[in-house]
Amino acid sequence: MQSIINDIAEQMAQSPDKGIVASYIPQLAKIDPNQFAISVALPNGEIYSAGCAQTTFSIQSVSKVFTLTLALGKLGESIWSRVGREPSGDPFNSIVQLEHEHGKPRNPFINAGAIAVADAIMQGHQPKETLAEIVQFIRFLANDESIVIDEKVARSEVETGTRNASLAYFMASFGLFENSVDAVLGTYFHHCSIAMNTHQLATAGLFLANNGINPSTGYAVVSPQRAKRINALMLTCGHYDGSGEFAFRVGLPGKSGVGGGILAIAPGKASIAVWSPGLDVIGNSKLGTEALELFASKTGWSVFGQ
Amino acid sequence: MQSIINDIAEQMAQSPDKGIVASYIPQLAKIDPNQFAISVALPNGEIYSAGCAQTTFSIQSVSKVFTLTLALGKLGESIWSRVGREPSGDPFNSIVQLEHEHGKPRNPFINAGAIAVADAIMQGHQPKETLAEIVQFIRFLANDESIVIDEKVARSEVETGTRNASLAYFMASFGLFENSVDAVLGTYFHHCSIAMNTHQLATAGLFLANNGINPSTGYAVVSPQRAKRINALMLTCGHYDGSGEFAFRVGLPGKSGVGGGILAIAPGKASIAVWSPGLDVIGNSKLGTEALELFASKTGWSVFGQ
Amino acid sequence: MQSIINDIAEQMAQSPDKGIVASYIPQLAKIDPNQFAISVALPNGEIYSAGCAQTTFSIQSVSKVFTLTLALGKLGESIWSRVGREPSGDPFNSIVQLEHEHGKPRNPFINAGAIAVADAIMQGHQPKETLAEIVQFIRFLANDESIVIDEKVARSEVETGTRNASLAYFMASFGLFENSVDAVLGTYFHHCSIAMNTHQLATAGLFLANNGINPSTGYAVVSPQRAKRINALMLTCGHYDGSGEFAFRVGLPGKSGVGGGILAIAPGKASIAVWSPGLDVIGNSKLGTEALELFASKTGWSVFGQ
Amino acid sequence: MQSIINDIAEQMAQSPDKGIVASYIPQLAKIDPNQFAISVALPNGEIYSAGCAQTTFSIQSVSKVFTLTLALGKLGESIWSRVGREPSGDPFNSIVQLEHEHGKPRNPFINAGAIAVADAIMQGHQPKETLAEIVQFIRFLANDESIVIDEKVARSEVETGTRNASLAYFMASFGLFENSVDAVLGTYFHHCSIAMNTHQLATAGLFLANNGINPSTGYAVVSPQRAKRINALMLTCGHYDGSGEFAFRVGLPGKSGVGGGILAIAPGKASIAVWSPGLDVIGNSKLGTEALELFASKTGWSVFGQ
Repeated sequence: MQSIINDIAEQMAQSPDKGIVASYIPQLAKIDPNQFAISVALPNGEIYSAGCAQTTFSIQSVSKVFTLTLALGKLGESIWSRVGREPSGDPFNSIVQLEHEHGKPRNPFINAGAIAVADAIMQGHQPKETLAEIVQFIRFLANDESIVIDEKVARSEVETGTRNASLAYFMASFGLFENSVDAVLGTYFHHCSIAMNTHQLATAGLFLANNGINPSTGYAVVSPQRAKRINALMLTCGHYDGSGEFAFRVGLPGKSGVGGGILAIAPGKASIAVWSPGLDVIGNSKLGTEALELFASKTGWSVFGQ
Repeated sequence: MQSIINDIAEQMAQSPDKGIVASYIPQLAKIDPNQFAISVALPNGEIYSAGCAQTTFSIQSVSKVFTLTLALGKLGESIWSRVGREPSGDPFNSIVQLEHEHGKPRNPFINAGAIAVADAIMQGHQPKETLAEIVQFIRFLANDESIVIDEKVARSEVETGTRNASLAYFMASFGLFENSVDAVLGTYFHHCSIAMNTHQLATAGLFLANNGINPSTGYAVVSPQRAKRINALMLTCGHYDGSGEFAFRVGLPGKSGVGGGILAIAPGKASIAVWSPGLDVIGNSKLGTEALELFASKTGWSVFGQ
Repeated sequence: MQSIINDIAEQMAQSPDKGIVASYIPQLAKIDPNQFAISVALPNGEIYSAGCAQTTFSIQSVSKVFTLTLALGKLGESIWSRVGREPSGDPFNSIVQLEHEHGKPRNPFINAGAIAVADAIMQGHQPKETLAEIVQFIRFLANDESIVIDEKVARSEVETGTRNASLAYFMASFGLFENSVDAVLGTYFHHCSIAMNTHQLATAGLFLANNGINPSTGYAVVSPQRAKRINALMLTCGHYDGSGEFAFRVGLPGKSGVGGGILAIAPGKASIAVWSPGLDVIGNSKLGTEALELFASKTGWSVFGQ
Repeated sequence: MQSIINDIAEQMAQSPDKGIVASYIPQLAKIDPNQFAISVALPNGEIYSAGCAQTTFSIQSVSKVFTLTLALGKLGESIWSRVGREPSGDPFNSIVQLEHEHGKPRNPFINAGAIAVADAIMQGHQPKETLAEIVQFIRFLANDESIVIDEKVARSEVETGTRNASLAYFMASFGLFENSVDAVLGTYFHHCSIAMNTHQLATAGLFLANNGINPSTGYAVVSPQRAKRINALMLTCGHYDGSGEFAFRVGLPGKSGVGGGILAIAPGKASIAVWSPGLDVIGNSKLGTEALELFASKTGWSVFGQ
C-alpha cells in the first residue's frame, strides 16, 4: 500500500497540468497549486500517507458528508422530506432545477441541498451551537480534537457567497426554512470552512468503509445499511455534474470540495483522502481525481469489478 | 441461492400493490400484471430461477445495455462524442436538457441517448442489417439462438412513438445524425422490442459480472475495464430519474425497461434478471425493484458495503 | 367622459367576482376588496374620476414606470446594458430565465429588472437619498407634494421579500451590482410601497400620453421618442406573463401592481389610473383590467384600431 | 407618401450592412441580399411602392397572420384552446417552453403555434384541400388571383425542416393533433412557401388597418374587434424574441418571415409591406426593420405616440 501511494504521489508531482485553484473565495485563491497529499485508512487501523498529509486545507463540500450523517442521526429518515436522493444533472449551483421542484433540492450534496441540511440540523439553535456540534462530531469521527474552523476562510465565504445566499433565500421563499436565512448561511459557510489534512479526513471517513463502525474506537457511528446508503449517494451525487464521470473513471463513492479535497470510500477495504488544490472545469480536484483513478486501477478496488 | 429467490418470488406473489402496466404502447398494455420472474446467473455457469422464468417479455430499454456494448465494440471510445456519461436529472423523455446541450444526450440510457447510439451503430447500413447484427449479438451473449424481435410490439411502438420521433428529429436538427431519422427510429423501436425471458437475460448480462468474459463460452466480450465502466453507467444512469433511488435502495448497477424487466449486476458475483410488468410512477418495475432490494439485502451483495 | 366612467364604476360595483387580494405581503392582505376607483387625466388638464379616487393604495410595481423614467433621465440609453427590452414569457418572479441570460433581466418591469434599475439609479448613494429622489420625482409628475412612502407596507415587504432577495443575490453573483444587495433591496421595497390614489396616479402618467410633456406645468419630462418607447415597453411587458392578454383585451400600454393599481396610457388621448385590490391568477387587478377593457371599448381608444 | 418611401428606399440601398440571408432553407440561401421593396396601402385604395415591389419572395412566417385569420373564421375563439396569446420569450424554435406548457404553444406566431393552427384548420381534410383554401383566402385578401405556392421552396423546407418536425411530433405526443403529423407538416411547409410581392402583401394586410374591412371590395373580412386583436398579437408576438425590440423601435404591429418580408399595420392609417432578404441575428429582415423604423418616425404613425 505504501509503495502504491508513493508511486501515485510521485506521478502526480510530475503532472504538467495541475488544474486551476478556485478563485471565487479569495482565501482559497492564495493556495499554492503544487501540493498533493494522499492518505489511506484501513479497517484494521493502519493509515498510509504520501505527500503533504499533515497540511490542512479547507474541506469545503466534503463537509456535506458529515453534516448529512449528523442530520440522519438527529432526524432519521425524515431528512428526505427536505432533500431528494437523485443526481442533479446540472452545475452545482444551478437554481433552475430548484424552481422546477418547488424549492426541494435534488440531493444533500449540491449546495442547495447542504444548505437545507444545515437548516434541518439547527433545530432552532444558534449557528454557534450548531457549529460546535458539527465540529465535535467531525473530531469524534477523525479521533482528533485539534480540528477547527478556519475563520478567515469562513469570513471570505460570507463576503463572496452571493450565489449561495440566492439559493437560500429562494428556498426560504417556499416557506421551507425553520431558521433565519442569515443563520443558516452562517452555519453553512462555517462548516464548509473546516480545515483538515488528508490523514484526518481519511480517518473520519473510515466508518463508511467499515459498515458504519469507527474501528479505532469501536463505536457504531451509523448502521451498516445507513453507511451503504451514504456511499450510494456519494457515488451518484458526490461530484456535482461530474458524478457520472467520476463513477466511470474511478468507480468509488466519493465527495469532492472546491478546496481540492476528495474523500473516497472503497467499501470493506479503505477510506481514502486526497488533496490537491487545482481544479478541473467542473470544480473537482484535477490531480485528486487522477490519483484516485490510478489508485482504483492499481488496487482493483472499484466497486464495479476488478 | 435457490431458497433465497424462492422466498423472494413468494413474497412478491403476496404483494398487494403490483404497480401499473405501461399503457402507452398498446401491445404492452395487454400484459397480465400478476407475473413475476427472477433468474440469477453465476460466473461458474450455474443459473437459478424462480417464477415464470421461461415467459418472454419485451426487454425495451434493457436492450440499451447491449446496443451500447455493441457500439463500444464497433466505434470504441469515440462513441462518447455522441452521448455523455452523466445522469440526466430529468424524466426519461425530457427534451429540455437536450436543447440546453445542443442535441447531445446526457447518457446512452435515456431514450435520446439510445437513439443516438442506434444512429452510430448503423454506419450507413439499413435497419434490417443493423437489427440482424444486434439480435445476433444478444443471441451470442445469451448463448441462445431462439431470441427474436416481437414484431407486433415493434409495430405498436412505431405507431405510438411520437415523443421518440420528436427527440430524433430534434437531434437531427443539430446535424448530428448520419442516417435518416426514419431508419434510426425503425432500428431503435425494433431493438427495444426484442423478447427475452429472465433466464436468457441473466445469462446475457453475465459478462458484466465477470470482468467482461462470458463464462459459458470463455469469450472475452469486452475488456475488464470496459465492463466496469458499463456497470458504472448502469448505476448512475440506468433507471432514468430514479437512478439515485435505485442505488440508494438496491445498491447494484441495473438497467430497467418499461416492459417490466430489470437487469442488475453484482460485480464478481452474479448477473440477476427480474421481471414483473407493473411499473412505479417513475416507470421502473415495481416488484422488480422490490425483489432486487430484497435480494441485495439477503445476499449482502450491494456494491456499497455488506 | 364622466358618464362613461360612472357607468364603468357602477358595473364594477355589481361584479360578483372581485378577485383575491394579494396575501404574501401582510399589510396588503388586510385591504377590503370591495373598492374600486378610476381616474382619467386628459392632456388639456381635465381630470375625471369615479369611485374612491381619493383613497390611497400601494402602487407597488406601477412604481417601476417611474423608476425606469428616472433611470433613463440619469443614465440615458446605457440603462439597456443592465436590462433588456423583451417580454419575459415567464411568471414575474422566475429565476430560470435570469440564469439562462447570465443575470441580465429581460425587461425593467419584471421584479429582477426593476431591482437592477434600482441599483443603477443609486449610483453609490444611500437608499434614503435615492428614495428621496424617487419620491420627489413622482411628486413632480403628479404635481402633488403629499405623496409619501407607506412605511408599514415597506417593512412588511422587507420581511416577506425572500423571493426578491433571492433574485437580487442571484444578479449580484454575476458581479452586476454596484451597491450592496441590502441597500438595493431596501430601495426597491420602499419605492414599491409608495402610496397614491388614482387621481394622483393618472396625473403622474400624463406625460406618457402627451409626447413626454406634463401639461399642468408645461415641463418636458422626457422626449417624445422616449415617451413612445416607455409606452411600448408597458404594452409588451407591463403585465408580467399576462401582457399578451392585456394587449389582446384592452389594447393600451399599461403597468399593473399587486396592490391592485393599473396605469394605462392612451397615447395622445389620456392617462388612466384604475384601482381595485382583488387580483386575477396572474397577479393583475381583476376589476381594474375589466374596467380598462370596458373603457377602451367605449372610447374606441385601443392603439390597435377603433 | 411617395417621396417618403422613395427616401427610405434610397437610404436602404446605401446601407453598408444588409444582414445575412437565411441559410437553412437552401432555396432561400440563393437570394441576392441587395434587394429592397416597400409598399404602403391606404384605406382609400391608394398604394405607393418603392424598390422592387413586383418581385415575389417567400412570405414564410408572414403567412401565419393569414392562417390565424382563417382559423378564427373557421373555428372562432375556440382556437385559443390550441394556442395561447402570450409572447414566448424564447428563440422561435424553442421546445423548452412547449414542454413546460404540455404541448400548447404560447402564441400562433411562433413555429409551434402556427403548426397547431395548421392542424386546427385542416379539420380532417387533406393538405392539398387545406392549402387550396389558404391560397384562395390570401388571393381574396390581396385581390389578386396570381398568387401561388413556390413548390421548390416547399420541397426545400420539407427536406430541411427537422426542427419543425420535432416540434410537431412533440405536440402530437401530448395527443393534441387531429391530423397526421406528416399531413400537418406538409400543410405548414407549403403555406410558408407562398410567394408574394410587397404590393400584394400590403394589399392583403389592409383589412387589419381598416377595422376588418377590405376597402377594395368592401367585404368585412373580420369584425373590428378581431382586427384589433390580431394587431395586438402581431405587436406582442410578431417578431419572435425580437418582438419587444420591434415595438420599442418601430411601434407598429408587425409580422416578419425568414424570407425577409415584414407586414406592418398602422391602425386606421395604412398597411405596409417591406422586403429585404438579409436578416439580423434574431432572424428578422435587417433593412426591413430599419425601413419601418424610418417610416414610423417620418409619418409619426407609431401606435405609442407621435
